[in-house]
Amino acid sequence: MNSRKWFPALKLVALLCCLSLQPVETGKVLVVPGHGSHWRSMKLLVKELTHRGHDMLVLVPGTNLIHDLEQFKTEIYPVEYTQGEVDGVVEELIDRIFLELPKFTSMLMTAQLFVNITHYAIRGCESLLNNQQLMSRLRETSFDLILTDPLDPCGSILARVFSIPTVYFLRGLPCLLEYSVNQCPSPPSFVPSLLSGNIDVMNFPERVKNVLLSVVDHFGCRLFLGHYDEMVSRYFGEDMTYKDLISHGDIWLLRNDFVFEWPRPVMPNMVFIGGINCAKSAPLPPDLSEFVDGSSDDGFIVFTLGSMVPKLPVEKAQQFLDVFGQIPQRVVWRYTGVPLLNVPENIKLMKWLPQNDLLAHSKAKLFITHGGSHGIYESICNAVPMLILPLFWDQEDNMLRMVTRGVAETLNIHDVTTDKLLAAVNKIIRDKSYKERIVELSHIHLDRPLQPMEQAVFWTEFVIRHKGAAHLRVAAHQLTWVQYHSLDIIGCLIVALMTALWVTLKCCLFCVCYKRGRAKTKSE
Amino acid sequence: MNSRKWFPALKLVALLCCLSLQPVETGKVLVVPGHGSHWRSMKLLVKELTHRGHDMLVLVPGTNLIHDLEQFKTEIYPVEYTQGEVDGVVEELIDRIFLELPKFTSMLMTAQLFVNITHYAIRGCESLLNNQQLMSRLRETSFDLILTDPLDPCGSILARVFSIPTVYFLRGLPCLLEYSVNQCPSPPSFVPSLLSGNIDVMNFPERVKNVLLSVVDHFGCRLFLGHYDEMVSRYFGEDMTYKDLISHGDIWLLRNDFVFEWPRPVMPNMVFIGGINCAKSAPLPPDLSEFVDGSSDDGFIVFTLGSMVPKLPVEKAQQFLDVFGQIPQRVVWRYTGVPLLNVPENIKLMKWLPQNDLLAHSKAKLFITHGGSHGIYESICNAVPMLILPLFWDQEDNMLRMVTRGVAETLNIHDVTTDKLLAAVNKIIRDKSYKERIVELSHIHLDRPLQPMEQAVFWTEFVIRHKGAAHLRVAAHQLTWVQYHSLDIIGCLIVALMTALWVTLKCCLFCVCYKRGRAKTKSE
Repeated sequence: MNSRKWFPALKLVALLCCLSLQPVETGKVLVVPGHGSHWRSMKLLVKELTHRGHDMLVLVPGTNLIHDLEQFKTEIYPVEYTQGEVDGVVEELIDRIFLELPKFTSMLMTAQLFVNITHYAIRGCESLLNNQQLMSRLRETSFDLILTDPLDPCGSILARVFSIPTVYFLRGLPCLLEYSVNQCPSPPSFVPSLLSGNIDVMNFPERVKNVLLSVVDHFGCRLFLGHYDEMVSRYFGEDMTYKDLISHGDIWLLRNDFVFEWPRPVMPNMVFIGGINCAKSAPLPPDLSEFVDGSSDDGFIVFTLGSMVPKLPVEKAQQFLDVFGQIPQRVVWRYTGVPLLNVPENIKLMKWLPQNDLLAHSKAKLFITHGGSHGIYESICNAVPMLILPLFWDQEDNMLRMVTRGVAETLNIHDVTTDKLLAAVNKIIRDKSYKERIVELSHIHLDRPLQPMEQAVFWTEFVIRHKGAAHLRVAAHQLTWVQYHSLDIIGCLIVALMTALWVTLKCCLFCVCYKRGRAKTKSE
Repeated sequence: MNSRKWFPALKLVALLCCLSLQPVETGKVLVVPGHGSHWRSMKLLVKELTHRGHDMLVLVPGTNLIHDLEQFKTEIYPVEYTQGEVDGVVEELIDRIFLELPKFTSMLMTAQLFVNITHYAIRGCESLLNNQQLMSRLRETSFDLILTDPLDPCGSILARVFSIPTVYFLRGLPCLLEYSVNQCPSPPSFVPSLLSGNIDVMNFPERVKNVLLSVVDHFGCRLFLGHYDEMVSRYFGEDMTYKDLISHGDIWLLRNDFVFEWPRPVMPNMVFIGGINCAKSAPLPPDLSEFVDGSSDDGFIVFTLGSMVPKLPVEKAQQFLDVFGQIPQRVVWRYTGVPLLNVPENIKLMKWLPQNDLLAHSKAKLFITHGGSHGIYESICNAVPMLILPLFWDQEDNMLRMVTRGVAETLNIHDVTTDKLLAAVNKIIRDKSYKERIVELSHIHLDRPLQPMEQAVFWTEFVIRHKGAAHLRVAAHQLTWVQYHSLDIIGCLIVALMTALWVTLKCCLFCVCYKRGRAKTKSE
């Protein structure tokens, strides 16, 4: 088994060779991207498809949360809200993170914030749909495909308006919608509901909670996504909901992998491309390279709470500073908050850091993260154990997956203390089991027959070549919820059985009465 | 889209390139093969793995239905039944095919025959397990993997005895066991039960039939596989059944593809390798090549009813002869029955024919087949429409899939007449839609990111490299049937709800009575 080291490198060469030989049937692709971190991986695929000769047009609202657009051909359409309004929603979210609210209140607030964001998505999309000139131009372009994130329904709406096949690119949707709209069963006995705090192995009370949450999800999502439903039915008729609309996606490129997600039933049109963001890019900038290369055998720590949360309340930041001053490791810390005093020499503060490239460095010993999926995949790819401080949304679920697999520890951002932090950092670095387990996970994750980018490229081009992927669409889309679960059949069978029993009973009673009557008559 | 023609060829080159660069971490593999046609595809994988340097040992009982063993390293162990006995069972099956029995009787008889075959599997396996000398030798070899067909439990038993990971290679199991043992849901509303005569789109009566059949399957399979359960519990304790045993398979290589099967939920440890038998081998033998090359533009027909049914009752054979005499196509016919008189010049009778190589010939116009899965995949790979005469077991299901997709017609072997046969043959050849649809199906089938053999090799070697595939195993294996379906939770919730309602009602009643009592007292 000594070939493990050169295995990924050789495979990469082989796959590049495959890719270069694969015929490019170039198509015209309209990209309707997701915002914020959702665009971070999608842009890698858009770049690769552009490189392969496809005519890619990225369609974005004038006010957005999308970075690095300059390297793509874009079409920017005006909207009626300002950058200040959108940034305000994000600021609000960040500010709330550090308020110590009860869990349920915090969840409700995040949900409310999500609903606020859907408002902007709808307003932006309406601006586009009402822009007759642009819409005509898009229609005339005769795109072969729409590549989009279904969390923003605008791409799916355009796909339906223009009758174009769709490829979805996403990590997931609220309420496990990515599974339910694909008619994929998610038995609550071993598929934990989102934000449930459950893992795939549950005891009785946890299963009760999971069943109740899956019911809440089923109905709650309608309220949650009510504005999307309203908009979709306004354009496509009363009968159509947001779920119906996005259920027409041909291929779902899901940023998942089963070293991270719990194994569960899946559908044939789902393609798993978890870790697509791990591809190594440029070498480290000279000053950063010098800083991390210069760390002793104790190595260095990478610390970031994600692109959305660049700053920390100053008292929290001070706690981290105190801890980092007591350890032999160097620390690269993404920090843009209030300037800190007395920063020890082993700490390098940066406004932005090349996270994956740092984690790929042989001296990276620990990744302190908020538990976003991009960071976790980069940690797995590069086999660096984690200390996770989940902040909001799915990050607690992500943390649970990693802690259960023994490759991470966790702390609550609200009750973190210098002692707890120091103990956790030392534990993960000194106890070799974290490293051993993440090396194992990393080997499994990287050992795939096709790398995630190849999968994503293949299936996108497949949809262009075949004008969809109808052969992977289950017939269940034609069924109602009652029919899907055969509840009508079960009901009818119970009624039929009860009727048969009742008739049999009545017949028996009649016979008994008749016999008794006869016997009585005889005896008289 | 003009690159479609050279696409498969280029892809093959690219994949061979990938394969040759992939590191071979050679392992010791014990192969416990399936019998009859089950070995036909598995041997291709065994050959490929041997070629890649793995140490493959094929373990077979002295009396078997396995051909072409001479090209492999084998270990043959003695058993207590004779070749005559086994051949007798097969003969019985073939004889019954041509008896015109009611469908239900025929199904029962086939099931009985299957049970008879399980007897031989058990007797063979017991001979092996009692062969202390051979068992010690096998144990000492320290195999890395067992590659087996789970329809014969012997491979799975050895895997458990020796604690070795397992890769299963199969088309399917009775009662859709390949899904249920992997804890994969098969909702009967759109997943047709085996032998149900249903497709994935069902009306109400068909769904009723499907639900009832899925219940029958659930319980019936226990009777059907009772001897296997008995044997497994004898070796591994009362608690263990055949289903429990085979549920430990690490990777399930399923000879399925969704151009053939209906799309449905699947599990992460299932790898779809349908069409693995399509790889082209040698060119046609000179006489056969001359015969088919010499056919006019009308081309030729390939006619075979599978390796198990080489002969036809003479009156049936005469009907085919009459029809073939009236058409302009040449016919290559696998026939070993009573010698036929007045065979027209356009017919070539053969004891064995290279089916896939013939179907790959550009002049192949029609494939007359019994509807075995190997033949159907070869027809799809080579885009040749079919006339299917299903004989037994899953062949009617296979036929339904192809007829529904518009790439085949069907006739009942019992009420086939010269007129019907002639009409069907002419219809498929003259109506271009059959050819167009199977060309489309073929393009989709061949357009996969990895060819089936590459998938099979990769995942087999993956299990060797990682000593299993535990990360793909769902937690549901720990649940009982009641827990899996959350019936305990639903029951408890209903009881809790009813109790709450009852208590509320009682409280209300008490309050009303109390108030009335007070009012009455006051009025008095």
